[in-house]
Amino acid sequence: MITVFDDMQRLHNPSSFLVAGKSQPMPERPERIDMLLEGVRRAGGRLVAPKPIGNETLSLVHDARYLAFMDTLWERWHRQPDAAEYPAPNIHALGRSSLAPVGYPDSVVGQVGYHVGDGSCPFMDKTWDAARASAATAAHAARLMLQGERFVYALCRPPGHHAASDVAAGFCYINNSALAAEILHRAGKRVAILDIDVHHGNGTEAIFYDRADILTVSIHADPKRFYPFFWGYAEETGRGAGEGYNLNLPLPRGTAIDDYRCALAKALRRVGDFAPEILVVAAGLDIAVDDPFKGFAIATDDFTTIGGDIADLKLPLLVVQEGGYPSPSLGASLVALLEGLRS
Amino acid sequence: MITVFDDMQRLHNPSSFLVAGKSQPMPERPERIDMLLEGVRRAGGRLVAPKPIGNETLSLVHDARYLAFMDTLWERWHRQPDAAEYPAPNIHALGRSSLAPVGYPDSVVGQVGYHVGDGSCPFMDKTWDAARASAATAAHAARLMLQGERFVYALCRPPGHHAASDVAAGFCYINNSALAAEILHRAGKRVAILDIDVHHGNGTEAIFYDRADILTVSIHADPKRFYPFFWGYAEETGRGAGEGYNLNLPLPRGTAIDDYRCALAKALRRVGDFAPEILVVAAGLDIAVDDPFKGFAIATDDFTTIGGDIADLKLPLLVVQEGGYPSPSLGASLVALLEGLRS
Repeated sequence: MITVFDDMQRLHNPSSFLVAGKSQPMPERPERIDMLLEGVRRAGGRLVAPKPIGNETLSLVHDARYLAFMDTLWERWHRQPDAAEYPAPNIHALGRSSLAPVGYPDSVVGQVGYHVGDGSCPFMDKTWDAARASAATAAHAARLMLQGERFVYALCRPPGHHAASDVAAGFCYINNSALAAEILHRAGKRVAILDIDVHHGNGTEAIFYDRADILTVSIHADPKRFYPFFWGYAEETGRGAGEGYNLNLPLPRGTAIDDYRCALAKALRRVGDFAPEILVVAAGLDIAVDDPFKGFAIATDDFTTIGGDIADLKLPLLVVQEGGYPSPSLGASLVALLEGLRS
Repeated sequence: MITVFDDMQRLHNPSSFLVAGKSQPMPERPERIDMLLEGVRRAGGRLVAPKPIGNETLSLVHDARYLAFMDTLWERWHRQPDAAEYPAPNIHALGRSSLAPVGYPDSVVGQVGYHVGDGSCPFMDKTWDAARASAATAAHAARLMLQGERFVYALCRPPGHHAASDVAAGFCYINNSALAAEILHRAGKRVAILDIDVHHGNGTEAIFYDRADILTVSIHADPKRFYPFFWGYAEETGRGAGEGYNLNLPLPRGTAIDDYRCALAKALRRVGDFAPEILVVAAGLDIAVDDPFKGFAIATDDFTTIGGDIADLKLPLLVVQEGGYPSPSLGASLVALLEGLRS
């Protein structure tokens, strides 16, 4: 099993994020990499390092202004007198019909508010380097698929599925799954993305929301009371040409395997109807019962069942690592999922 | 000079707000009231207390869901385990065309992110009571105008002009100026709002953005590098039926009286063309050269000039206090402005 991995991804090492307005220890830590690598080793993975990628590749799914912002954020933030140690949004570009349209400021404080969607995006001196390495990992995996591989695992970290074209959010800076899908699409492949992370893949949804050529499907905890709160509802079915090409399947907190499989069956029927040539699996492992976010109650063995259901599509699979946080079973969840997916 | 004032406004007593991601001492403190009252005393003001108002009145300019949220926020926030001492947004309902439409969550954390626009809205146990007293002050002033007064000063605090129908922001929870204007409008008066606070009156703009029946005009520091960053640009001219009924006049940081008067002349020509029966002046005093926000360079005497220019319209004036922060000249700025406005 080819596993794409870049050690540069360790460079992002945040200590905290905000929960209910309060700073809490950050679960999206470099040690996730070691737990996942241990799973890869047990699954018989062979590590391949990606080549670095430039903004030309990132601009396949990200706004040029966002990339310019991220390239210079650290330096510009610290040119301000009396700024916080790390860039953090303190004004938010809320946009809805009750407000006037949002303009784009020159000030870095304003731009942080424009481009950073929540308090779960600590940005440190090497964050952008690590995020680029994570994106390079996904891009390399996509190119391997184009060379004829039928199964590749991209060990991406930080994750990507909450990042929209011009927004970083939820531990995510670059949307790795979307980038991989777009690379495949540009090479002429028909692609769908199935997101099984416990959190709705709102960044991925946003990037493809107006498009019919890439199907996006997400199974996740109901956002009424779970991150990302504002997106992930069943009513979000796509817009304009994209109408009908986004499927959200929110499930109650605590959902276990039986109900999960019912939703998964719906998701897989939609994927089957779309008839992609390659399926990108945005593989969050945080549906596990012992994940610190406690969204769903999926046991370790259940991951094999889930993987097996997906494998029944008989499609080439590009598996992109999304969430899944330190717990005794994190590595085992990955092993079980990979086993099912390759069955 | 009738001055409407409610001592309950002192109950909101926050200690800090966020600047460049960092907690800083809060300038919007109860002591502002004493500085402004001293100005009122020197200007020969006569104090009148307002009657309390209910949600029926507030709903003239605020969303019912927002009012329900504010009514229960303190209690709901503190029902959460391990929440911060004060409600604070850590996820932001960014909305623009690059994202899917924003949904409304049940969770109080999500709702805080939906309804609170920045880190300048500390919410404490008595904040909502003080904000309601501030709104009652503006509403009472409006009723006095309807009874035939030609000049009333509403000493409102906390201020209001950054609050939109469903968003608290920038020290503001209820939009006092908009409420006063809407009360006058509902009573059949033709009304315009002239906002001279150094910060763009984005809440007021938002509330009337789609309407032609209340004109909104704001002179303020260019939002490219000044709060509220995302709104206040010259391009925001209104929407739909409201097209042409919002005028923003952003000026460079450090603008002094000569350039200020040029912009003011434009603003007053637009007001004159609209031909209101009553003008609501959203009177921020933070254009003063020694205001801690250092936006403009208006000297104390210049306030009389500015007031005089506005008085030349010969309109009944309802003056609603907006910003203006502790400095040696705060009271004197008010005295000078009131002198000009009554000339």
